[in-house]
Amino acid sequence: MLRLRFVKSTLLSPNFLSISNFSPKPTSHSPLILKFKAQLQMGSSYTTSSPSSSKLLFRQLFERESCTYTYLLADVSHPDKPALLIDPVDRTVDRDLSLIKELGVKLVYAMNTHVHADHVTGTGLIKSKLPGVKSIISKASGSKADVLVEPGENIRFGDLFLEVRATPGHTLGCVTYVTGEGPDQPQPRMAFTGDVLLIRGCGRTDFQGGSSAQLYKSVHSQIFTLPKDTLIYPAHDYKGFTVSTVGEETQYNPRLTKDEEGFKDIMANLKLSYPKMMDVAVPANMVCGMQVPASKA
Amino acid sequence: MLRLRFVKSTLLSPNFLSISNFSPKPTSHSPLILKFKAQLQMGSSYTTSSPSSSKLLFRQLFERESCTYTYLLADVSHPDKPALLIDPVDRTVDRDLSLIKELGVKLVYAMNTHVHADHVTGTGLIKSKLPGVKSIISKASGSKADVLVEPGENIRFGDLFLEVRATPGHTLGCVTYVTGEGPDQPQPRMAFTGDVLLIRGCGRTDFQGGSSAQLYKSVHSQIFTLPKDTLIYPAHDYKGFTVSTVGEETQYNPRLTKDEEGFKDIMANLKLSYPKMMDVAVPANMVCGMQVPASKA
Repeated sequence: MLRLRFVKSTLLSPNFLSISNFSPKPTSHSPLILKFKAQLQMGSSYTTSSPSSSKLLFRQLFERESCTYTYLLADVSHPDKPALLIDPVDRTVDRDLSLIKELGVKLVYAMNTHVHADHVTGTGLIKSKLPGVKSIISKASGSKADVLVEPGENIRFGDLFLEVRATPGHTLGCVTYVTGEGPDQPQPRMAFTGDVLLIRGCGRTDFQGGSSAQLYKSVHSQIFTLPKDTLIYPAHDYKGFTVSTVGEETQYNPRLTKDEEGFKDIMANLKLSYPKMMDVAVPANMVCGMQVPASKA
Repeated sequence: MLRLRFVKSTLLSPNFLSISNFSPKPTSHSPLILKFKAQLQMGSSYTTSSPSSSKLLFRQLFERESCTYTYLLADVSHPDKPALLIDPVDRTVDRDLSLIKELGVKLVYAMNTHVHADHVTGTGLIKSKLPGVKSIISKASGSKADVLVEPGENIRFGDLFLEVRATPGHTLGCVTYVTGEGPDQPQPRMAFTGDVLLIRGCGRTDFQGGSSAQLYKSVHSQIFTLPKDTLIYPAHDYKGFTVSTVGEETQYNPRLTKDEEGFKDIMANLKLSYPKMMDVAVPANMVCGMQVPASKA
């Protein structure tokens, strides 16, 4: 039984003795050790794990049934504390609005990265409960919303903003929302990738205008070109990961590190079943989850 | 259909026109408006939502079956990149160790906030896969581990450290690990509360030496006395919340905002069923999840 050497209520010396027991001891230049050393060097360049900003309030929220992440962002330095929700789910709207009320922020936008096939978006329900809120989706999605965004546009909330990047491939209208570049914007940048890039994975490409060639191009040209420490916040995770980085995905994503042909082969052979929610979710999500005829939306 | 007024690829003016539409307009001093104003003022004091540190790598990981959060912390500024895992789960050990390898950090401690009754800890399995790793639990838990910590001790990893606070009440040996105080430590502070304080809730107090009076005292004396912006990272969440703050919980926790008698009444009337994993998990967790006779652990 080892007992900790400890110092009560004092600050600490730079090195902790027991940790030195675990130092790598490179006694040879075997491939394993070289790989480990490379990982150590690389690790420091992209292993940040939280956005830092005096303005940004950020919350990640999870819906267990569809494994969907909803993201709340607000500029709490602005007098109005304007906030937005990315990819809200209908069945967790009450939770989200309760949190928003408690945090004292003012929801202005309820937005989607794409037309989801696995759950009904919460945007319609949110608009019915908070009539001032505007829904946002990409123009390319072909869906109804109060605001239809296009690549290159910026969505502002207070002094913060999200940049819209077109990342089709999972669906034709998929976009990635990326926090702005600039000294007043969160560091590192944050990319809300929807289903186009998942942590160590990606969305399927076999329906809703999906295309493996397009997804590959989207990720490589629009996401992997961001700084390596950019935080990746996907619309889903099925293994319990909450965040990744561009650096990690460019090195460890088992699909997108392949060349384009290898990637297309993988995607052509996934043999996935038809999504059980698709026939309900897609028609609803085409009208912002309002579940009313399109003519009234 | 409203269209965004946007600026392509430019920085933004401080105010976004459409947001002014949503400004609160306090035309009277009704209690509702006063409450909203109070929320706005208060919001700014504790609505940070991410730790900021140039040294800390931080990852939150989720296990869906028991809704358990596992936390990875590492000092990536230290040459060894020493790391620790708080509350690992046996069935997600491979995921955790794979991530640790990819991030290029060096796991030194696998630690628990308490003897869990709802899942088997991953510490034993981790030790078998990475023999250098030391397990940590509180001395008050009565469990086996390589390192038994007591209140006031600091657990160091590189130049960072966690302070051990005794927070009994859910079990007799529950502790809360709090990131250190000091200019080199993460800001805001982070409290890994185990089951003693959950987001808008708390752990049950009807077994394993639990006591509602003790839990109430623990939370109020050891957690609610931390700075209001301290981030609360619990061992579980069942509603999809990932983080809270001391400020939020002191104001909105539906149980712990009651007076002590009111709290004890709530806890005495929860009518919870016997945990299905208890008879497997507790004996295993008393020996660090090794699932071998205690004499061999």
